[in-house]
Amino acid sequence: MKAARYYARNDIRIEDIPAPQLLPGTVAIDIAWCGICGTDLHEYRDGPIFIPAAGHPHPISGESAPVTMGHEFSGTITALGEGVTDLTVGENVVVEPYIIGADVDVSEGHEYQLSPNMNFIGLAGRGGGLSEKIVVERRWVHPIGDIPLDAAALIEPLAVGHHAFVRSGAKSGDVALIGGAGPIGLLLAAVLKAQGLTVIVSELSQARKDMATSTGVADHVLDPSQTDVAEVVRALTGGLGADVGFECSSVNAVLDTLLDAVRPAGVIVNVSIWGHPATVDMQKLVLKEIDLRGTIAYANDHPATIELVRQGKVKLEPFITARIGLDDLLDKGFDALINHNDTQVKILVQP
Amino acid sequence: MKAARYYARNDIRIEDIPAPQLLPGTVAIDIAWCGICGTDLHEYRDGPIFIPAAGHPHPISGESAPVTMGHEFSGTITALGEGVTDLTVGENVVVEPYIIGADVDVSEGHEYQLSPNMNFIGLAGRGGGLSEKIVVERRWVHPIGDIPLDAAALIEPLAVGHHAFVRSGAKSGDVALIGGAGPIGLLLAAVLKAQGLTVIVSELSQARKDMATSTGVADHVLDPSQTDVAEVVRALTGGLGADVGFECSSVNAVLDTLLDAVRPAGVIVNVSIWGHPATVDMQKLVLKEIDLRGTIAYANDHPATIELVRQGKVKLEPFITARIGLDDLLDKGFDALINHNDTQVKILVQP
Ligand SMILES: NC(=O)c1ccc[n+]([C@@H]2O[C@H](COP(=O)([O-])OP(=O)(O)OC[C@H]3O[C@@H](n4cnc5c(N)ncnc54)[C@H](O)[C@@H]3O)[C@@H](O)[C@H]2O)c1
Ligand SMILES: NC(=O)c1ccc[n+]([C@@H]2O[C@H](COP(=O)([O-])OP(=O)(O)OC[C@H]3O[C@@H](n4cnc5c(N)ncnc54)[C@H](O)[C@@H]3O)[C@@H](O)[C@H]2O)c1
Repeated sequence: MKAARYYARNDIRIEDIPAPQLLPGTVAIDIAWCGICGTDLHEYRDGPIFIPAAGHPHPISGESAPVTMGHEFSGTITALGEGVTDLTVGENVVVEPYIIGADVDVSEGHEYQLSPNMNFIGLAGRGGGLSEKIVVERRWVHPIGDIPLDAAALIEPLAVGHHAFVRSGAKSGDVALIGGAGPIGLLLAAVLKAQGLTVIVSELSQARKDMATSTGVADHVLDPSQTDVAEVVRALTGGLGADVGFECSSVNAVLDTLLDAVRPAGVIVNVSIWGHPATVDMQKLVLKEIDLRGTIAYANDHPATIELVRQGKVKLEPFITARIGLDDLLDKGFDALINHNDTQVKILVQP
Repeated sequence: MKAARYYARNDIRIEDIPAPQLLPGTVAIDIAWCGICGTDLHEYRDGPIFIPAAGHPHPISGESAPVTMGHEFSGTITALGEGVTDLTVGENVVVEPYIIGADVDVSEGHEYQLSPNMNFIGLAGRGGGLSEKIVVERRWVHPIGDIPLDAAALIEPLAVGHHAFVRSGAKSGDVALIGGAGPIGLLLAAVLKAQGLTVIVSELSQARKDMATSTGVADHVLDPSQTDVAEVVRALTGGLGADVGFECSSVNAVLDTLLDAVRPAGVIVNVSIWGHPATVDMQKLVLKEIDLRGTIAYANDHPATIELVRQGKVKLEPFITARIGLDDLLDKGFDALINHNDTQVKILVQP
């Protein structure tokens, strides 16, 4: 089968590899669509980061580069391994793309995203969504009902937004400020809006500001090059400030603004991945008793996330800005995102 | 009456000023003992910070320098203003030294420490503990029963520790790492120990390490110049890390260690006041889903704090390292703390 394989920085190859074997307790899936994620771009340009470099096998998967890429994917079940009785062939599903120790409890209430050596399918081995087929453990397969398969490829980043929402402790009626409206900031905005929050988005790029407005996920779209974001947020909240802030840009000025713009006893969730240490004004953190919280991926967020989409509370189609084939992955996918990244939100690949 | 008055940086004078007037709703107190706080030293050497500079009156108190200093004090009620019926003359009390808007709700569950223009008695006006007498609003007066008046002067910084504990969400059986065992770190350790936590203290100074050991507030005392603190904490916690960390030094290396030493989903409470921005490794905050929380002063912490002392769960006497008169404030008080600060913990002044 065809697969996009990561060998090293700037070296991703579309190759023909053997299809994966069905084993007891696993599910075979024909992949329909796979999204390209910012993390994939990072691995391509600056990696390997999550990907285990050649010769340094991941302690759980036992694999190292070359590995198949892609962790945001949907597909259709083609076969069920021995012992898998609660799914059916032909059912449409998404995969929660975890590589996690076999002994880790992944049931409700367990923070398995924080377990030792946690990594991702499509980065640290076990196949990936940028290939024709995959076989995954039953526990990571989530049925999606009648959600279209293209939209379903966005459920993975939407679950990242859902988990950030859960981490924030925010509730209906709260006011949220999102700093950075890339795919993660926009999908987070969609979750917050669906949960009944008032959503303020701060973003520099015109295309992304337009997307935040046209999709209806933001109540207010602010541009920090044109307005004092913290001041406007205070004006919108009776002088108090936002209840929650979300850092989705890994730009220090955005974090500074969030510390300014949240209310006393407010919460800031840092969603972004920083390549360098951040500078934090501790005086604001102390005097306003702010909580600055990290969030990584998801943990039992997929069922609630899928429900948001199934019930039509989140509409994912508008965030799909291009559809390409696997052979066009590098030029129409990676390069398009790297060079014109603000007009693209989510590019889907059909392997 | 005699009072220590702050005029400007390096200009504190012991002066004779008129005694304060009893007004309706207030309580007149003869001051017994007043502690010298790190904040007082900051104001002296680098201020004015909290103190409103001459000509810039504080919006609530209406006062500016010169102001009477001292906010960690105990005393005996000498008179009750009209309408104060639930206290008695001769009763021993401490004062929660707040300057807060008259309209702010300070009842249980209200975060009045975060109200606009919050400041402190003994810094922004309304008298102070470094004088013979004070008159304060009823709402800030807390009876102490049979707690000795000298120990009671430490209830204010102990309440800072109690509030930091509350902010951490820690519970009996948890393991805490405190970075910096100055007066705040030591008193926080006393609170945590009383709440049933295992307390690990990291400190450089020999005198303070000795104090943490001899008072029994720490189960383990580590020296970062001699051991890898995070590694020892992991070894003490079955490889996992501390449940909570407390930054009490405003030293960046200590914050770095805390980010390393807390467990996944752990909490770090930043107690210290930073004169400069901190550098935070966001990668650790994200991948471990750490909560970094600010804490300021106290809010309805005094009753529980007083109970800890009354019931003998916290013993404050061992932290009193000197007792001086008001005339010796600068040489035997401020200068002693500035020059030999590690052998002193709490110096009490008897005005
Ligand atoms: N925590 C997790 O589990 C998780 C999962 C996926 C992605 N991420 C991270 O989330 C972050 C966001 O991902 P993305 O794909 O949306 O990235 P992105 O780079 O596409 O989006 C960042 C956005 O921030 C905007 N921005 C830059 N400077 C700004 C400023 N000063 N004010 C306002 N906006 C500004 C940019 O214009 C851009 O639209 C990345 O760091 C990514 O690595 C985290
Ligand atoms: N948040 C609040 O409400 C509040 C209230 C009072 C005080 N504070 C602040 O709390 C902080 C602590 O106050 P304090 O009076 O105890 O200060 P302090 O300066 O006496 O204590 C700091 C301690 O940290 C130790 N230290 C320095 N470098 C270290 C290192 N690398 N590793 C371990 N220990 C190290 C020092 O030896 C010292 O004992 C100050 O910043 C103070 O302003 C905050």
